[in-house]
Amino acid sequence: MPDTYNYEYFNVTFPAEFVAQVEINRPEKLNAFIQKMWLNFSAIIKKLSLDPDCRAVIISGAGPRAFTAGLDVQAASQGTLKKSDTDVARKARKTRESIIEFQDCITDIERCGKPVIIVYHGISYGLGIDMGVACDIRIATKDVRLSVKEVDIGLAADIGTLTRLPKSGCSFSWVKEVALTAREFYADEALRVGFVSHVVENKEAGIKKAIEIASLIASKSPVAVYGTKELLNWSRDRPVDDGLKYTAIWNAGMIQTSDVERAMLSGLQKRKPTFEKL
Amino acid sequence: MPDTYNYEYFNVTFPAEFVAQVEINRPEKLNAFIQKMWLNFSAIIKKLSLDPDCRAVIISGAGPRAFTAGLDVQAASQGTLKKSDTDVARKARKTRESIIEFQDCITDIERCGKPVIIVYHGISYGLGIDMGVACDIRIATKDVRLSVKEVDIGLAADIGTLTRLPKSGCSFSWVKEVALTAREFYADEALRVGFVSHVVENKEAGIKKAIEIASLIASKSPVAVYGTKELLNWSRDRPVDDGLKYTAIWNAGMIQTSDVERAMLSGLQKRKPTFEKL
Amino acid sequence: MPDTYNYEYFNVTFPAEFVAQVEINRPEKLNAFIQKMWLNFSAIIKKLSLDPDCRAVIISGAGPRAFTAGLDVQAASQGTLKKSDTDVARKARKTRESIIEFQDCITDIERCGKPVIIVYHGISYGLGIDMGVACDIRIATKDVRLSVKEVDIGLAADIGTLTRLPKSGCSFSWVKEVALTAREFYADEALRVGFVSHVVENKEAGIKKAIEIASLIASKSPVAVYGTKELLNWSRDRPVDDGLKYTAIWNAGMIQTSDVERAMLSGLQKRKPTFEKL
Amino acid sequence: MPDTYNYEYFNVTFPAEFVAQVEINRPEKLNAFIQKMWLNFSAIIKKLSLDPDCRAVIISGAGPRAFTAGLDVQAASQGTLKKSDTDVARKARKTRESIIEFQDCITDIERCGKPVIIVYHGISYGLGIDMGVACDIRIATKDVRLSVKEVDIGLAADIGTLTRLPKSGCSFSWVKEVALTAREFYADEALRVGFVSHVVENKEAGIKKAIEIASLIASKSPVAVYGTKELLNWSRDRPVDDGLKYTAIWNAGMIQTSDVERAMLSGLQKRKPTFEKL
Amino acid sequence: MPDTYNYEYFNVTFPAEFVAQVEINRPEKLNAFIQKMWLNFSAIIKKLSLDPDCRAVIISGAGPRAFTAGLDVQAASQGTLKKSDTDVARKARKTRESIIEFQDCITDIERCGKPVIIVYHGISYGLGIDMGVACDIRIATKDVRLSVKEVDIGLAADIGTLTRLPKSGCSFSWVKEVALTAREFYADEALRVGFVSHVVENKEAGIKKAIEIASLIASKSPVAVYGTKELLNWSRDRPVDDGLKYTAIWNAGMIQTSDVERAMLSGLQKRKPTFEKL
Amino acid sequence: MPDTYNYEYFNVTFPAEFVAQVEINRPEKLNAFIQKMWLNFSAIIKKLSLDPDCRAVIISGAGPRAFTAGLDVQAASQGTLKKSDTDVARKARKTRESIIEFQDCITDIERCGKPVIIVYHGISYGLGIDMGVACDIRIATKDVRLSVKEVDIGLAADIGTLTRLPKSGCSFSWVKEVALTAREFYADEALRVGFVSHVVENKEAGIKKAIEIASLIASKSPVAVYGTKELLNWSRDRPVDDGLKYTAIWNAGMIQTSDVERAMLSGLQKRKPTFEKL
Repeated sequence: MPDTYNYEYFNVTFPAEFVAQVEINRPEKLNAFIQKMWLNFSAIIKKLSLDPDCRAVIISGAGPRAFTAGLDVQAASQGTLKKSDTDVARKARKTRESIIEFQDCITDIERCGKPVIIVYHGISYGLGIDMGVACDIRIATKDVRLSVKEVDIGLAADIGTLTRLPKSGCSFSWVKEVALTAREFYADEALRVGFVSHVVENKEAGIKKAIEIASLIASKSPVAVYGTKELLNWSRDRPVDDGLKYTAIWNAGMIQTSDVERAMLSGLQKRKPTFEKL
Repeated sequence: MPDTYNYEYFNVTFPAEFVAQVEINRPEKLNAFIQKMWLNFSAIIKKLSLDPDCRAVIISGAGPRAFTAGLDVQAASQGTLKKSDTDVARKARKTRESIIEFQDCITDIERCGKPVIIVYHGISYGLGIDMGVACDIRIATKDVRLSVKEVDIGLAADIGTLTRLPKSGCSFSWVKEVALTAREFYADEALRVGFVSHVVENKEAGIKKAIEIASLIASKSPVAVYGTKELLNWSRDRPVDDGLKYTAIWNAGMIQTSDVERAMLSGLQKRKPTFEKL
Repeated sequence: MPDTYNYEYFNVTFPAEFVAQVEINRPEKLNAFIQKMWLNFSAIIKKLSLDPDCRAVIISGAGPRAFTAGLDVQAASQGTLKKSDTDVARKARKTRESIIEFQDCITDIERCGKPVIIVYHGISYGLGIDMGVACDIRIATKDVRLSVKEVDIGLAADIGTLTRLPKSGCSFSWVKEVALTAREFYADEALRVGFVSHVVENKEAGIKKAIEIASLIASKSPVAVYGTKELLNWSRDRPVDDGLKYTAIWNAGMIQTSDVERAMLSGLQKRKPTFEKL
Repeated sequence: MPDTYNYEYFNVTFPAEFVAQVEINRPEKLNAFIQKMWLNFSAIIKKLSLDPDCRAVIISGAGPRAFTAGLDVQAASQGTLKKSDTDVARKARKTRESIIEFQDCITDIERCGKPVIIVYHGISYGLGIDMGVACDIRIATKDVRLSVKEVDIGLAADIGTLTRLPKSGCSFSWVKEVALTAREFYADEALRVGFVSHVVENKEAGIKKAIEIASLIASKSPVAVYGTKELLNWSRDRPVDDGLKYTAIWNAGMIQTSDVERAMLSGLQKRKPTFEKL
Repeated sequence: MPDTYNYEYFNVTFPAEFVAQVEINRPEKLNAFIQKMWLNFSAIIKKLSLDPDCRAVIISGAGPRAFTAGLDVQAASQGTLKKSDTDVARKARKTRESIIEFQDCITDIERCGKPVIIVYHGISYGLGIDMGVACDIRIATKDVRLSVKEVDIGLAADIGTLTRLPKSGCSFSWVKEVALTAREFYADEALRVGFVSHVVENKEAGIKKAIEIASLIASKSPVAVYGTKELLNWSRDRPVDDGLKYTAIWNAGMIQTSDVERAMLSGLQKRKPTFEKL
Repeated sequence: MPDTYNYEYFNVTFPAEFVAQVEINRPEKLNAFIQKMWLNFSAIIKKLSLDPDCRAVIISGAGPRAFTAGLDVQAASQGTLKKSDTDVARKARKTRESIIEFQDCITDIERCGKPVIIVYHGISYGLGIDMGVACDIRIATKDVRLSVKEVDIGLAADIGTLTRLPKSGCSFSWVKEVALTAREFYADEALRVGFVSHVVENKEAGIKKAIEIASLIASKSPVAVYGTKELLNWSRDRPVDDGLKYTAIWNAGMIQTSDVERAMLSGLQKRKPTFEKL
């Protein structure tokens, strides 16, 4: 396994049974992202999605100062955004396809068959929000400084924040304020509006809380967890009737799993069930 | 009327003018549901929807310990979930059609032409959440123990929770946590995230609060209430433009009611209007 | 400019650079709306949307008592709602087209290329809610009395509240309660459920807060702000995948703006950027 | 079985193995429908959907002159359409719920787990079109006289034609012409625009052709047929991506059927497979 | 009335009772469109939509050579498409809003409460197709030369063809071929694929045919026709279930019209009914 | 380039300027597909999508007998479909993810930035239809034998046919007949219902016709072609309003291309324009 998950900018560890932790590891640059990083991040998430030894994923940032400062603007400005002599439409086409590829990497979190928990600490800007709204559960430390930062660099956020934040159950008035002003918001406000579901003292406590939730999830039937994540995401985006119909055919097959019997028996016998790997 | 609403597992009463109360009555089993019960429940809701003497419905559970423990797992395990020698696809087809039928019974709450208020107390698990998210207004007592329980029996919830909870205005991070972990959550948390809109001291206070809201609704134009419920549900699921167009044709007919004139006149004359039955 | 924005029932001013304020000005009738008013309101919003000197809009109500009492029911009752001898279907057709025209005026707030901030104070009923849910950011004073008032005059709200409120990130249980009962709700509750994002001491403080937010927005790239508003509204109504695809083609062109370079340079040089008018 | 399918206005027979035929039997009234008939028709279709001895359904009309003249207008005019003294909105509510119930009966054809083939002959008006567009395969005789007849009685067709005809693959220009003019169209035109897929000499030939197609379908894996019908209907109404995702989870369970092995083996061995009942 | 419909580039006449004809009148330029023309065209259609003396609309082109050559490219190239020194994003914003305004003018055909019939003859390029796909019924003369011409001027058609043609019931393979190649197609092919529903000898015959269909429509209940058009358009774009629900509430009000009784009585008495104006 | 497109089972050639041809090359097995083939096919299509020397793609099959016999059932039956001892749900999960991966490979045709033309000849079964409905233009030879073959092997087609065929503009009655019976259909019928847009004498003529259309497309502005394909696909799946809005923002950027000026000038000067590579 060490080989499998060996990437320059990410530390992948298994701090508890069935629980993987992906740490963004470029602390000298406040964990800012360059293109190689989101491609690698996507590769890691895809592997974890198929890894039978992983049942829940935690994402965190290395170093004391930042979860991530977002896109490495300096690096980006030397790349696709540099002055170019080509046609507007030809640039537009390249940009469109780059954005779609980048979005796709982050959407891999949503497509991942295992729940993903994010632990925000310190500076958590821009791409950090794009990642978080694609995660399942969000935790923040008291020192967190969150910001939908993109308007500050002259663009509308395009890697998912403007699409997923309106569906996050947060006040839409608040969503618009933070997205239109790029102002920072902090732990208490994030909890009050429901952007995060837990606020903890510091990063260590955040990781601990995340491991606790992840382990609890990992103790459940992986079939049930796999379905629950997918059905929640599917239903969020569609009319109730489409959600119900998709659920019915989902369980038509999945309910034939032996996990149901195991779980029920364990329940009756008041003992902890074990489940086959998924 | 006593005859009409005479069902083994439900007590149907009219505690106030135009207000019906449906009490789940199987307290010795913590009001757990067997198939007959959801079929009967659906029948009751359909009747109330057409009953001109009913303008609002309250749902509650008999006994001190539970609103409902959810599906009667023991009974269910002897039914559709038992080992069977038939083909996977043939079982899948039967299961799919059973789920759809079961979902349909609960969706009758949403289709009911009268607002439905649920009063949670004590244990309120699984199917109790499925029912609640189909109701219009949710109230909880201080002793409530709520749980999206299904992953604990090895399956993804399939009677509506995973479909309607993401549309409930609650923090999506919280929705996922409670659905993926099956952990209990309590009155304060339920109020803070907006799952319920009122927390009350105990079941009696809950019924009282529900009757108060129901009576207030029952004092309004039944035409206005009927439209308001339907338009809110329709719009939740569709783009704004579809919501507006449907609203326009709805009121094109409905606004020709004499209720408008009655309501306006009463307003000007500072007296309580009365309206024809719907 | 004074000429351009000269309307009987509205005061249009520019209290800060790039910030327009539209004050409803019929205080002797609690700022209640007659048809001419929503047509004029729509005209003002459309002009501001194209006005290069406007980058954010504030809406407020004149006088101490009310933001607006809603539709001027007395005037309306002498208009379309009066008894008429024509055919039900012919009346329905006229009503449908009137409602669509009226909805369209309010939807102009959503279509406006500049963010719109509403400041509620005192009585803020009916149409006031319809307007607010089409605005981007909502602020309320401590003395506010908000109400989805329409059921009290015998009809389902048809100018947008029932369509947009379920998408506002507020508890759906709460949304239904206030829409079905027409009860008043106040500043604290409005803040807690996320209907407004700020509560302030009084109207003056509300205007000040609104100007502060509006000025902050006005200091950002108008290209970024224009896109952020549109992408948030588009995404709210559609599946995540449609949101992402629309975002990609949006930025394919918009990212070629010089604002990105200006904003980045200013960021690096720690100075405030200036942007061309939009 | 004779008992099971014993209805006053319908003859239900099994003209070939696994093939049911439902004959509308009120020839003295040109098979015009009264309310009891569509309720019974729905009941028959629901039974056939669950009947393991039925794998395909044929619908035809008794007597030489008409498949159906549509709604029995005379009977209807003595029912819901009669002058009534009640409120416009109250009548609207009753009408809305009646229409939904009626639509539901016809939609049962679409929900039926077995393909449904319609054989049109002679007069085939109004409700006959509503039924046909909910069927899977349409056949017509040379003497057929088809008409979307509703505008001729002063109303927009409301039992499905205006909803399903635009999705039938027929020229939309043609769809609008026949729906807006209520003019008759005949076998050749119906074939050319794709409204029917076969034109035959007379009713006997039509029944024969229908039995031939139905028997061919009945010889295939019932699991495959059940899925094919549902997936075609689902996909017609939704974006491609939703169609593909639903298909993937559908087959995730269904493909585990033994029918696949049986069908493949029979294919290799050049013999006709047999399949368990569904 | 002559005054009301007095426009430089359009002749509006009433060739039969309740039938309006709008003739594009710039034959010296092959009826090519400049901006003023689509604004005026929209104004005419909106007036006809409300004009009680109009129950169906015919659109045709003056002169022997062309229905329309499409956009007046020469004029357009001196307008928005000319070289400009402004920012890419600022140009993009202006272009986007111009396109939306232009689309809106053409969509007015679809929104028009009266059916619209188009008669193509001679050259019928580009915008001519955009207009046609927004019309209800399409007729062509034998000498017609149709073309989705836009790729020939370096752009994707943006006034509706690429959006509505895939929903026209024509072979999608054919749709793509003509849109991607900009090749001409002629009367026979247009009829075979269902793009038009009638081919006639020449323009005179086309107008005659259009008047015949328009008069037939104009003889029906205007309430029924108004609903039929709207319900067909609504349903084309939405899932079947949304089509049915919208239809139910539509008719809940509309069916209370006296037209139903008039139409039925006339039917029984074998005489032509007359209906109140809409 | 020879290296770039060097695959065991596919011959990739450039028979005309800017025109690529992908020939399925496993004629000894009737071009039946094994997993490696669809992965490679996807890789080829993705490369061509980005290859500036390619502006249109042709897909054909090697050998005289078949375009493709579909999935290599024998190979498949030894793979995922073999008997396995694992849990139903765990098999369902693997199957679901395999189907999604397979669908994704075929959807790459739709995502390809260049139009794709398919030439069917001889046996063209199952997967051949899945591929064809994802292509833009379909051509068939006179000897073609087409079949939606999947029900014959006991399953509902799951790689796109059941999803895209209902949106192909073919008669839905016909679509269902061929999908439910798996019967063969031939060139004339395929042309009549609009499944293909051209029927040609033999394979050579088919390739020639395809090159002719592809070359015509390749002579147009690549910016215009790229947009036209994407906008047609987007609009097919969504309401008209979403199609129009997406089109407006698409062209807001794309119309700033120099191709418009080049195309217009060439048009005025009656000469063939040339365009920069995309």
